[in-house]
Amino acid sequence: MDCFRNIGLVGRQGSTPVLQSLEHLIPFLQSQGLNVIIDKRISDVMPNHGLQQSTVKMMGQSCDLVIVVGGDGSLLGAARELSQSDVLVLGINRGNLGFLTDIAPDEIEQKVGEVLRGDYHAETRFLIEAQVTRDTELVGTGAALNDIILHPGQAARMIRFELYIDGQFVYSQRSDGLIVSTPTGSTAYALSGGGPIMHPRLDALVLVPIFPHTLTSRPIVVDGNVDIKIVVAERNDTHPLISCDGQHQIPCLPGDIISIRKKPHRLQLIHPRSYDYYESCRSKLGWGSKLGE
Amino acid sequence: MDCFRNIGLVGRQGSTPVLQSLEHLIPFLQSQGLNVIIDKRISDVMPNHGLQQSTVKMMGQSCDLVIVVGGDGSLLGAARELSQSDVLVLGINRGNLGFLTDIAPDEIEQKVGEVLRGDYHAETRFLIEAQVTRDTELVGTGAALNDIILHPGQAARMIRFELYIDGQFVYSQRSDGLIVSTPTGSTAYALSGGGPIMHPRLDALVLVPIFPHTLTSRPIVVDGNVDIKIVVAERNDTHPLISCDGQHQIPCLPGDIISIRKKPHRLQLIHPRSYDYYESCRSKLGWGSKLGE
Amino acid sequence: MDCFRNIGLVGRQGSTPVLQSLEHLIPFLQSQGLNVIIDKRISDVMPNHGLQQSTVKMMGQSCDLVIVVGGDGSLLGAARELSQSDVLVLGINRGNLGFLTDIAPDEIEQKVGEVLRGDYHAETRFLIEAQVTRDTELVGTGAALNDIILHPGQAARMIRFELYIDGQFVYSQRSDGLIVSTPTGSTAYALSGGGPIMHPRLDALVLVPIFPHTLTSRPIVVDGNVDIKIVVAERNDTHPLISCDGQHQIPCLPGDIISIRKKPHRLQLIHPRSYDYYESCRSKLGWGSKLGE
Amino acid sequence: MDCFRNIGLVGRQGSTPVLQSLEHLIPFLQSQGLNVIIDKRISDVMPNHGLQQSTVKMMGQSCDLVIVVGGDGSLLGAARELSQSDVLVLGINRGNLGFLTDIAPDEIEQKVGEVLRGDYHAETRFLIEAQVTRDTELVGTGAALNDIILHPGQAARMIRFELYIDGQFVYSQRSDGLIVSTPTGSTAYALSGGGPIMHPRLDALVLVPIFPHTLTSRPIVVDGNVDIKIVVAERNDTHPLISCDGQHQIPCLPGDIISIRKKPHRLQLIHPRSYDYYESCRSKLGWGSKLGE
Repeated sequence: MDCFRNIGLVGRQGSTPVLQSLEHLIPFLQSQGLNVIIDKRISDVMPNHGLQQSTVKMMGQSCDLVIVVGGDGSLLGAARELSQSDVLVLGINRGNLGFLTDIAPDEIEQKVGEVLRGDYHAETRFLIEAQVTRDTELVGTGAALNDIILHPGQAARMIRFELYIDGQFVYSQRSDGLIVSTPTGSTAYALSGGGPIMHPRLDALVLVPIFPHTLTSRPIVVDGNVDIKIVVAERNDTHPLISCDGQHQIPCLPGDIISIRKKPHRLQLIHPRSYDYYESCRSKLGWGSKLGE
Repeated sequence: MDCFRNIGLVGRQGSTPVLQSLEHLIPFLQSQGLNVIIDKRISDVMPNHGLQQSTVKMMGQSCDLVIVVGGDGSLLGAARELSQSDVLVLGINRGNLGFLTDIAPDEIEQKVGEVLRGDYHAETRFLIEAQVTRDTELVGTGAALNDIILHPGQAARMIRFELYIDGQFVYSQRSDGLIVSTPTGSTAYALSGGGPIMHPRLDALVLVPIFPHTLTSRPIVVDGNVDIKIVVAERNDTHPLISCDGQHQIPCLPGDIISIRKKPHRLQLIHPRSYDYYESCRSKLGWGSKLGE
Repeated sequence: MDCFRNIGLVGRQGSTPVLQSLEHLIPFLQSQGLNVIIDKRISDVMPNHGLQQSTVKMMGQSCDLVIVVGGDGSLLGAARELSQSDVLVLGINRGNLGFLTDIAPDEIEQKVGEVLRGDYHAETRFLIEAQVTRDTELVGTGAALNDIILHPGQAARMIRFELYIDGQFVYSQRSDGLIVSTPTGSTAYALSGGGPIMHPRLDALVLVPIFPHTLTSRPIVVDGNVDIKIVVAERNDTHPLISCDGQHQIPCLPGDIISIRKKPHRLQLIHPRSYDYYESCRSKLGWGSKLGE
Repeated sequence: MDCFRNIGLVGRQGSTPVLQSLEHLIPFLQSQGLNVIIDKRISDVMPNHGLQQSTVKMMGQSCDLVIVVGGDGSLLGAARELSQSDVLVLGINRGNLGFLTDIAPDEIEQKVGEVLRGDYHAETRFLIEAQVTRDTELVGTGAALNDIILHPGQAARMIRFELYIDGQFVYSQRSDGLIVSTPTGSTAYALSGGGPIMHPRLDALVLVPIFPHTLTSRPIVVDGNVDIKIVVAERNDTHPLISCDGQHQIPCLPGDIISIRKKPHRLQLIHPRSYDYYESCRSKLGWGSKLGE
């Protein structure tokens, strides 16, 4: 057990089940001789915990492992804070659907125990970032583990934009927006929009148009290292938004240029040894089990 | 003009427009001082041509450049013969839709002239191959530039099979089959089946289920270097077929194992300098031109 | 119990579970004082049953109720035989998925008992028929409860055809075929092809293109009383087939005209009182139950 | 020419091409001895026109024919005002895409001339209306020719709701909303969402989920006379909106009940005699023309 010493705990706020799992997890970690550091925002609603507090971002420096309790949404938020560091991140699922948070609350002692003994499956997931430029001036930035979405601010409103990949013009489009998704995000919002599932190890991005006004628009999969540029048309009724993982938003104006590319740092995500990506797909998407089973 | 000396000519058989383009192309190439070698099968229907003949496969050894006149289908056929060699391949389009054959017949002198002067855009496209194994014995193989398709032999008949990727079980499925497509094939049959468009430089494969019996099956994009294994279920009403680029077929039996992976050799495809992949998409798929145009 | 006297029994052949359910059903029906008439083809594999035998078609004349034991496929076959008559048809499910056969084997006594007491939900389902004409001569006909499909005979082969509705030209298409589906069939093959779900009481047909070669083809829903005409193009590589409910096939030639319209007679389908169409969708398609459940 | 006497003119505001067409149309109508009545809002930007002014709604009483100049959007707006009356409505297209406004600006004299001589094709199109109820109190209503859409107010935000048809529970859903579309609207927003095309004479509605969170949700087509009830879940992060033809919005709260049904009055839409619905589909959606053309 010499691989981990300082464990950060992050949890979805305002959730009683999350608090219960944290209250279960803290003594378990302490019984293993580990130092527990708790997210400031959670700390406020847990009286008398007596633990060291920290922002999530600082946990990237002070911890060896950060455990996120909540749904995939909670892990997305933590990932954006922690991706600059090399800290390992583990998810415990208290939400509905978890491609990222794959330990169930009743498995905490067993599965977290395994991980603490060094028995885990590690992988890296890349993030993407958006930069919004207005006349040559940078007016906003954001990062995402799942997806960066151009949308019209108000629902069901058309946006006009041009798309460029590695400097090459791809198409102009009138639609309700565009999803740029990583493989990690391909099982999230992009999937609802008709995008393909992309294996997490694939180095690629998918661009999924949202309610395009032509029948010929289709998801496009490109290399993960391309530069994507979206130019919001001058003539637009709406003031579109850039949304990062559905959690951070950047308001845009007609004429703005949105550049999207891979971030240099990656998230260090770990899973219990029993983790199987396709098994997650089968159980969460309802794919067929083996014949005869 | 010292880059090319021996030019192979391949054409779709039984097509008068193709013959016309060949009859136009031959004197043009000869006027450039080049040695023209002609596909044996075409040779038979062109009396008194006085040219050297060859199989397409042999052109891979004897030629510096092979020009294919026809549609994408003609180029697919030539690609499977030529992919073992390093010969350059250029397509002249006499078909309906050409992602691979991108010179129009009335541009021959200009565009082929440019290519002969060394002014061209070169790229490699990978091929995939299927091996069908019955009890431990290899019973058939095939290669494809576009796609390898498992289908039921008769139309609209369900097949049951299991899918494995890199040895991991993915799902069992009842459907009308499965398309395994390269990026090159992603704008062909896989697109009709709801697959995404994949940029030709992407190192990936897409698996597109054909008329799956569940609503949860979706196209999956995986790294181009994976091993794909399809196990045909023992209980199958039909004797399915493996189809390579829609041109070569391998009959299967219940219990057969189909292994699909990337071939080590790649096709050396060249285009005129003006080639633009996304422009092909815009013109062939009807995507939007720049705003205001 | 004076509503029923003669009960016909039809079952999928070659299925042991079906035989078991029939052997369970026969004494139950006899104990209710009913006269049981059994399908000739089943009769051969049930020694010493001592029951009156009949073709399914004749049951339309001699029976008040025909019970079909099997999957939806078995009921489709019986429906085509029985649709000329006014006999009531009830399905007991021994297959995988049953939109038509909605009594489970272990509910036989309870649910069939209810039906026999007159406590059932009756509805009519319309059938469609295809007529294939070659130079003014009728060369084949077929009927279907689910769908009539034009397909290429061999899988993954393009057909070229023109479509007319009520004499109006709709489009010419190159595709792997066309599905013409009733509302009953909209949850079957048409659904795999991307067609909408149509409520069984809707008087409409849906036309779903199979792997169309353009991205702009979409399912079209038209009034149930239209005349549909498909003209197979003269230039076709394949000899397409017309398939009725996937069970009866009519071979076609280039130039043939296929006319599809509603049949005048309808199937009299009955369900237990507890039947709920949307509940079938929820359980068979995996739709969401009520919030909080 | 005794069929028409009073002609109402409605145009999209703020559009110079629309004004040009109106200035072309007015003297033409006057030269035919007709009385021209102009939309109040357009009147303000046309100085010295010397014509009688009216609201669009009043034109339903005072006119025999209302001509709408603009895109389909302009006609949708007029339709909602005029559907209570029996006035005929004709559309002249100055927008991008016109399924409803099918006379081109350079055909005005010829095509409008034909219509005025009584040589036209008339049809009715039904509208739908939404009523929003909060605790038993009606808090908002709206009508639509194309579609009524439940959406989350902000884009890319999930709504939770339950759907009932004719009092039967259909499903609960988490999605970005739901489109309820008439056949008229089936070639508009619903088509971008994956809905089928429905012939305008079909008496049906289609329900198309927007970015559903399960892969099993599909468009459902139901009889045009059903009662649709959507119950917004109590637990919703957002305050959803009901949008009628994308032009009129009703804000909702968690727990609200939205009832949607057909309106008793229909729009009297007329077209030039040459009108052909499928020809509109071919030209606007890019469907294939006849083979050999």
